[in-house]
Amino acid sequence: MKKKNKKVNAAILIIGNEILSGRTQDKNIAFIANWLNSKCGISVNEVRVIPDIEKIIVKNILEMSKKFNYVFTTGGIGPTHDDITAASISRAFKVKYEYHKEAFKILERYYGKSKFNDGRKKMAKMPSGSKLIYNPSSAAPGFVTKNVLSLPGVPSILTSMIDNCKRYLIKGSKTHSKTLNLFTVESNISKQMGVIQKKYNKFVDIGSYPFFRLGRVGVSVVTRSTSLIQLKKVNKDLIKMIKFKKIIILKI
Amino acid sequence: MKKKNKKVNAAILIIGNEILSGRTQDKNIAFIANWLNSKCGISVNEVRVIPDIEKIIVKNILEMSKKFNYVFTTGGIGPTHDDITAASISRAFKVKYEYHKEAFKILERYYGKSKFNDGRKKMAKMPSGSKLIYNPSSAAPGFVTKNVLSLPGVPSILTSMIDNCKRYLIKGSKTHSKTLNLFTVESNISKQMGVIQKKYNKFVDIGSYPFFRLGRVGVSVVTRSTSLIQLKKVNKDLIKMIKFKKIIILKI
Repeated sequence: MKKKNKKVNAAILIIGNEILSGRTQDKNIAFIANWLNSKCGISVNEVRVIPDIEKIIVKNILEMSKKFNYVFTTGGIGPTHDDITAASISRAFKVKYEYHKEAFKILERYYGKSKFNDGRKKMAKMPSGSKLIYNPSSAAPGFVTKNVLSLPGVPSILTSMIDNCKRYLIKGSKTHSKTLNLFTVESNISKQMGVIQKKYNKFVDIGSYPFFRLGRVGVSVVTRSTSLIQLKKVNKDLIKMIKFKKIIILKI
Repeated sequence: MKKKNKKVNAAILIIGNEILSGRTQDKNIAFIANWLNSKCGISVNEVRVIPDIEKIIVKNILEMSKKFNYVFTTGGIGPTHDDITAASISRAFKVKYEYHKEAFKILERYYGKSKFNDGRKKMAKMPSGSKLIYNPSSAAPGFVTKNVLSLPGVPSILTSMIDNCKRYLIKGSKTHSKTLNLFTVESNISKQMGVIQKKYNKFVDIGSYPFFRLGRVGVSVVTRSTSLIQLKKVNKDLIKMIKFKKIIILKI
């Protein structure tokens, strides 16, 4: 029997003025997208970066949680006044914004009763009914509210927590990819590549990306598919075209 | 007379499967945001990353061009089948997708008549009525259609072209910022910072971002405002609080 392809998708919502101002270079998009695809077979279909403004967070959470299987938020779950992700998600889903008992205990144990001040307590406040994403780096947990998973913005903490998201996700079909690095220019292969893309339209995405390496220009032709058989077929066609055009394939 | 603050905003629309898949680490968001603020006084209020799918590009162009003063698109303006930005913007604005005479001439001159193949000719096709953004690196121009400015996705080419966008933009008030790097933790200053934020709510944004440096944790407190006077005032209040709490300011 043919295995059925199960497509599961996600979106990423980056909540952070520091990314929009250009002060901070985002590193979370590529990391989350790679992790979701390789570990969970989930593809990221959209990313948005928005400011720390409640009304805007609420609107985007509602829109994106309807449209995608999962929404990952990053940022805004710390102890300061600009950390309003949990409060905004509560408002979006019309649930209480309240202390999560287990999160409160985790943080109280981590800081010790005497140092567990109001700022730190704030990190235990979540949308009512949330489940926890444990944090092995700095204790303060992320949380899952309906299909929205909320993670911190600091990349080193986020990466240490990401595997703890897995239990909340349904696994999809992994997208496999193959890259051919060619010493040619895009316009030399664009026509043939277009024809091949049409032939495999339903099963394979072909992308082409110029690169500069070893002092020469080149093109990476990237094929992506959930079917390894289709991926093999399309690459056979591509290599035939490449050989016919006497293009050198760069082995790296 | 008091100078009036002119707020001009923009959004960035990254068109590219390679960013969504995690294959490529985006570098354009931070670069464009920094350039817009420092050179044009324009703040980026939203970023979206979407796949190379016409229907989705059309929808986002329409939504974002209505909502923001300018929309910058990156990616999808090369010679291959997956380069559909120009065609999609034409469809969004219901204008013809046709050869831009000057762009055609520029490219024909650059490649020479004999090497000006169909793929390369495609890069001269644009939404009717577009104005050109000249490209000193690789000739193929970007284009401006209504309030949408379309740039390539390759960062080295994009950066070489960005100054040529300036003539199409209305200048706004620059957002100034000041950063205090403190050897403390967020929760130690969160309460006081919240009070100070409230006092300056209308004029200044205060953000706080944890860092790890010289083996110690710290917090960068970033204040941002279009008014230098308000920025000075808020930092006076912050430094008073920092001194009262005996927190060390890291000079870097």
